[in-house]
Amino acid sequence: MPMRLDSQQADFATRFGDLLGGKREASVEVGDAVRSIIEDVRQRGDEALVELTNRFDRTSYAPGELRITEQEIAAASDRVSPEVRAALETAHRRISAHHQKQLPQDHIYQDEIGVTLGTRWTPLEAVGLYVPGGLASYPSSVLMNAIPARVAGVERIAMVVPTPDGALSDAILAAANIAGVSEIYRVGGAQAVAALAYGTHTIARVDKIVGPGNAFVAAAKRQVFGQVGIDMIAGPSEVLVIADHSANPAWVAADLIAQAEHGMGAQSILVTTDGRMADAVAAEVDRQLKLLPKQQIARDGWEEFGAIITVPDHDSAVQLANQLASEHVELAVDDPEPLMRKIRHAGAIFLGHHTPEAIGDYVGGSNHVLPTARSARFASGLGVLDFVKRTSVLGCTPSSLSALSEAAITLAEIEQLDGHGRSVSLRLNR
Amino acid sequence: MPMRLDSQQADFATRFGDLLGGKREASVEVGDAVRSIIEDVRQRGDEALVELTNRFDRTSYAPGELRITEQEIAAASDRVSPEVRAALETAHRRISAHHQKQLPQDHIYQDEIGVTLGTRWTPLEAVGLYVPGGLASYPSSVLMNAIPARVAGVERIAMVVPTPDGALSDAILAAANIAGVSEIYRVGGAQAVAALAYGTHTIARVDKIVGPGNAFVAAAKRQVFGQVGIDMIAGPSEVLVIADHSANPAWVAADLIAQAEHGMGAQSILVTTDGRMADAVAAEVDRQLKLLPKQQIARDGWEEFGAIITVPDHDSAVQLANQLASEHVELAVDDPEPLMRKIRHAGAIFLGHHTPEAIGDYVGGSNHVLPTARSARFASGLGVLDFVKRTSVLGCTPSSLSALSEAAITLAEIEQLDGHGRSVSLRLNR
Repeated sequence: MPMRLDSQQADFATRFGDLLGGKREASVEVGDAVRSIIEDVRQRGDEALVELTNRFDRTSYAPGELRITEQEIAAASDRVSPEVRAALETAHRRISAHHQKQLPQDHIYQDEIGVTLGTRWTPLEAVGLYVPGGLASYPSSVLMNAIPARVAGVERIAMVVPTPDGALSDAILAAANIAGVSEIYRVGGAQAVAALAYGTHTIARVDKIVGPGNAFVAAAKRQVFGQVGIDMIAGPSEVLVIADHSANPAWVAADLIAQAEHGMGAQSILVTTDGRMADAVAAEVDRQLKLLPKQQIARDGWEEFGAIITVPDHDSAVQLANQLASEHVELAVDDPEPLMRKIRHAGAIFLGHHTPEAIGDYVGGSNHVLPTARSARFASGLGVLDFVKRTSVLGCTPSSLSALSEAAITLAEIEQLDGHGRSVSLRLNR
Repeated sequence: MPMRLDSQQADFATRFGDLLGGKREASVEVGDAVRSIIEDVRQRGDEALVELTNRFDRTSYAPGELRITEQEIAAASDRVSPEVRAALETAHRRISAHHQKQLPQDHIYQDEIGVTLGTRWTPLEAVGLYVPGGLASYPSSVLMNAIPARVAGVERIAMVVPTPDGALSDAILAAANIAGVSEIYRVGGAQAVAALAYGTHTIARVDKIVGPGNAFVAAAKRQVFGQVGIDMIAGPSEVLVIADHSANPAWVAADLIAQAEHGMGAQSILVTTDGRMADAVAAEVDRQLKLLPKQQIARDGWEEFGAIITVPDHDSAVQLANQLASEHVELAVDDPEPLMRKIRHAGAIFLGHHTPEAIGDYVGGSNHVLPTARSARFASGLGVLDFVKRTSVLGCTPSSLSALSEAAITLAEIEQLDGHGRSVSLRLNR
């Protein structure tokens, strides 16, 4: 059974603290192994990349076979059913349209003393996109990672995807094709991250690496950070549903199950102002789990990490939501907007009874790559801003330089950087 | 002597490649030592923090003495000269005014089928600001890190600064006071980073840690990334001056020296379209170095890492600038704007003859925390966006959910996430 809490019980603070602090993934210390792999790929390039790939993925590629050809991509795309292709294209169209609105504007202006100040945005040139192989291989993730990069204006998107025992999903290749990925390589793990970060003969180095992966991939991204940019390290997924008496318990239960079926530590939490709703949802989860073809993962996740919390009012629910800082927050209430305004920490907020989180996973248009494990306290979901960078611009006239010179020279002096002060004073006409 | 290159010589590509790939800092492998320190502070809290602080900084603080009191801050501020206080206030006013313009806007809209889509920005609650002690202790850096956080709306800024042998600069405390830092602790190193990331009895945990530090601090930030957000790992500073015949060689030389005097691998590069300018600047650097009170650091830096490159035209200069992706780029030409538009990778661009980089370090108003070591390819300088995060908002009506349902259910099916599909289909009236 999932945890049942009541915010008005005496031991609530302690039990909620346990929920907040609970660990949902095994921490595997792979840093040293990853360090050797990265060093090996840096030193020996393709030779190491092929060796490691063939060893870990049980394949027998030659270096010339690492890149997936355009013919292979086209063939895979053709094998995908028309329904799936149409769904991928709908998703692509909606995600692109929404991300277009995230493009930042340059802004250069002159201040009151004639100093030119400003911000210019430019896209990254090359981005590496890591796509997991096997179970967690999701075409929707290819779209969610590649589209913001394309919208930002990134010219080159190099995708890597491991092919354990040679297997690779057609839908993954079709999604990459639709999203405008420029190159695809059948490599994965820390070796793929190393190749993207430092470059090999086959894979030119990129400027930033994004996309989810296992513990080896996460450790490798952490280690190459600085050489290249990286996105967040993704943790187990989570949803918080805030429901009052107006919610439909069957719908809420379905959303809790949808989260739990991700497995791997995924967490579903219901916070409700209505004790009968708590019971009704719990019963509905049980009932619906029995109908799910692959119910075991969802049931295990719900029982191990799930929670149902009753609270006296909406404001108490908001308070817990801000402490949980969940990846996904659903507001299953009749008037979600005032609640939404009060939620400060969340990756994404889903409004009202007709917005199951799954819509956001696929075709809503917003991004499904969101901060997990309470990192919504400080991080944002993936977007166009992750694929552009800001250059600041500063320009002085002789008179504005003169107006600022005294303060600059004074600060250079206390910092004992005489050369800094001289570079200013030399330019003054006195 | 600094390296002299001519882009039209046969071996240019190789020699420029060496310049690009040259390592300017010793890589110290301190990861294991840092891992123990972090674990120790996590386990033993203040007890470990005090022990490690007293050992590394040769101090003898009790836990109750770690926080610098308001009286101490006020006293230090009073000891700072009126000129310095005025300069800090000028800097504070200008940096605040410019960063105000970086505040992002919420944007929530309805699309053509009635789906509500949008972006809400909220400030982080608590930020940790690392300030180095000793030589590289710069009050201007306190302003540059704290002001964007304050402008963003961060309520709590907890600053840590080591006090080797108990020493602490009055100007640092004065700058922190002016910038609205809420708490200051006399701790540094990996132990301070651990305390900020995980919290101790004395120091409550923060959501993000920013600010420069030594190899231990950099390694600690890398290790706590995910638990908290971090800013870029700062490398040695660098300037690229692009100068044509219109430049003043004495001014250009002063700017190259100002960069070199940072030491610790700082790099100054001149790219010029004018061979005589190359010679004149080289001679001026020699002449001016002799006038500098602490000339040795600047001379060593210039001779070890400096470079003068002649190119045939402005476009060749831009091409090299984009390969170097320098932290600072100065355009010492009469008409800098067209050149500026062509520079794609740079932390900050300084326009024309009257904008020495030092103005940007102190009082220009833009931020001096900028991407180093070619990371301007993928990273931006510090700004308000580093202290806010985006929550995405999605809302469907019954009819827009219905319009999107087929594509969502199809994608859930190929990803074998039946619960996702059911959470959509359950809500349809059919």
